[in-house]
Amino acid sequence: MELVERLLRGDKRAAAKAISLLEDYDKKAADVLGAIYPHTGKAHIIGITGPTGTGKSTLVFALAKEFRKRDKKVGIIAIDPTSPYTGGALLGDRIRMGNLTLDEGVFIRSMGTRGHAGGTSRATADVIKVLDAMGMQIIFAETAGAGQSEVDIARIAHTSIVVEMPGLGDDIQAMKAGILEIGDIFVVNKADLDGVDSTLANLSLAVEREKPSGWKPKMLLTVATEDKGITDLADLIEEHYDFLKESGTLETERVERAKEELRAALSQHLFLRVLERPELIGEFNNLVQMIAKKEMDPHSAAEKLLGLAGIA
Amino acid sequence: MELVERLLRGDKRAAAKAISLLEDYDKKAADVLGAIYPHTGKAHIIGITGPTGTGKSTLVFALAKEFRKRDKKVGIIAIDPTSPYTGGALLGDRIRMGNLTLDEGVFIRSMGTRGHAGGTSRATADVIKVLDAMGMQIIFAETAGAGQSEVDIARIAHTSIVVEMPGLGDDIQAMKAGILEIGDIFVVNKADLDGVDSTLANLSLAVEREKPSGWKPKMLLTVATEDKGITDLADLIEEHYDFLKESGTLETERVERAKEELRAALSQHLFLRVLERPELIGEFNNLVQMIAKKEMDPHSAAEKLLGLAGIA
Repeated sequence: MELVERLLRGDKRAAAKAISLLEDYDKKAADVLGAIYPHTGKAHIIGITGPTGTGKSTLVFALAKEFRKRDKKVGIIAIDPTSPYTGGALLGDRIRMGNLTLDEGVFIRSMGTRGHAGGTSRATADVIKVLDAMGMQIIFAETAGAGQSEVDIARIAHTSIVVEMPGLGDDIQAMKAGILEIGDIFVVNKADLDGVDSTLANLSLAVEREKPSGWKPKMLLTVATEDKGITDLADLIEEHYDFLKESGTLETERVERAKEELRAALSQHLFLRVLERPELIGEFNNLVQMIAKKEMDPHSAAEKLLGLAGIA
Repeated sequence: MELVERLLRGDKRAAAKAISLLEDYDKKAADVLGAIYPHTGKAHIIGITGPTGTGKSTLVFALAKEFRKRDKKVGIIAIDPTSPYTGGALLGDRIRMGNLTLDEGVFIRSMGTRGHAGGTSRATADVIKVLDAMGMQIIFAETAGAGQSEVDIARIAHTSIVVEMPGLGDDIQAMKAGILEIGDIFVVNKADLDGVDSTLANLSLAVEREKPSGWKPKMLLTVATEDKGITDLADLIEEHYDFLKESGTLETERVERAKEELRAALSQHLFLRVLERPELIGEFNNLVQMIAKKEMDPHSAAEKLLGLAGIA
């Protein structure tokens, strides 16, 4: 496929086209994904999450610049309807982003959060594959809002960064229990504001707990608008990735992810077998009605459908 | 099955036993679920969510008492490791709970949040079925913490209640975007505290937005410890359920849920077909390794496995 060849050479327009195919559920999307698959798995995927207003996007821009200095190609995916990429930009952010979009080694893509979170996370996983295959070595996936997409992205990401800022208050803590478990690195951005000590104290609990990989989460102060703390943060991101490699976690997770991908594909293809036959679609719909009326339970219905499909 | 018969008569010990089977992934669990299935779908399922400290449990106790007065049997499921049911109880809560547990028409069950949220929500759905089948007419599912389980429970629940309290501050708003979308009813509990107006103002945005069903979310003030506002809240809960019935939403959702259940069962049974054969398990694991090494893409691997399984 010419599109895939161009994509693999790092052509941004080919990547944009491929992503459009994915978003439109185009039939060619599966072919593209299949063709690029062998070229994926090389990027370091970094999830960035935290409340709106903490300066996540500015932080990502600053990190992107820093990793460009380190000769890494950088992909950015924003999963956030209020993200500056999609129009809600402040002037400063637009200027910062403008510089980046002109850079051939940077690819920025925003994604809506239409549909349910499972759909978004799957679409995000596919877009990450495109950026990975086109040669982006560091990929930031930025999310905001409710916990579901954040948890989903954390499953895909190698390194999860939770961004806070001073003054968010103690009350928010309880809400964030799930997010605190996700973080490998906790960044207190806007650290020139009052209340840093209290924010650090709030986070201390999260940082005490070792991750299943054995990594002990770290805290860091930044002022992204002034590039303060960015070098240290980039170092820490690299340190975490090295840890994952050396501890064998990266490899373990790669196999786990492969297992999940095979299960998902198997499930999808098995479904197609059953549901591509018109007479079975009708029966599927009948059985749904019977289940809804509690005339049959889902497991018996599944067995019946498999029998009809000749899958003994 | 004697267990199921006792369960269907409303025997609490049989219900507890059935739930234990479910939690232990016991082989009998599927039989129990199949046997009780025709007797489910009658309960009004109410999700209760919101930050820790807002008094959700006290509110649930007060509502349970109110619905008992209305001659409804009440089930309570707490999905929260810090819930008073599981030991973190304040004395007042324990006393309130004590009265309820003695009532034959009330069944309380707490669930841990071990494992990932998908697992919890599936387990919760099964426990809800048990409570439903044993004749509980109103079932409260109380969650706390990060957004994922809340969103999952909201999918299962007919009516979703989001509990707030004065003084949580504006900063928390951004975090709650996902939760605000969930709510059918917003309760400002502890409404005797300062700052009620500001909390109501914060919520006003959430209440302006009509739900896909056409329901316009409502706000309500309560002081659960003094039973203030509880009658109105119970009325509103019944009003919402009536709305779902009259608008046809309840029926539409029932069919949607049946479809999801059949898909899940089909997927599960198809997997068993493939994975119950030892030679295919070996091949499955080989393919996982190949995918992890990017030597094969998941879709080609799925096709190969189906071919070997003789599912053409």
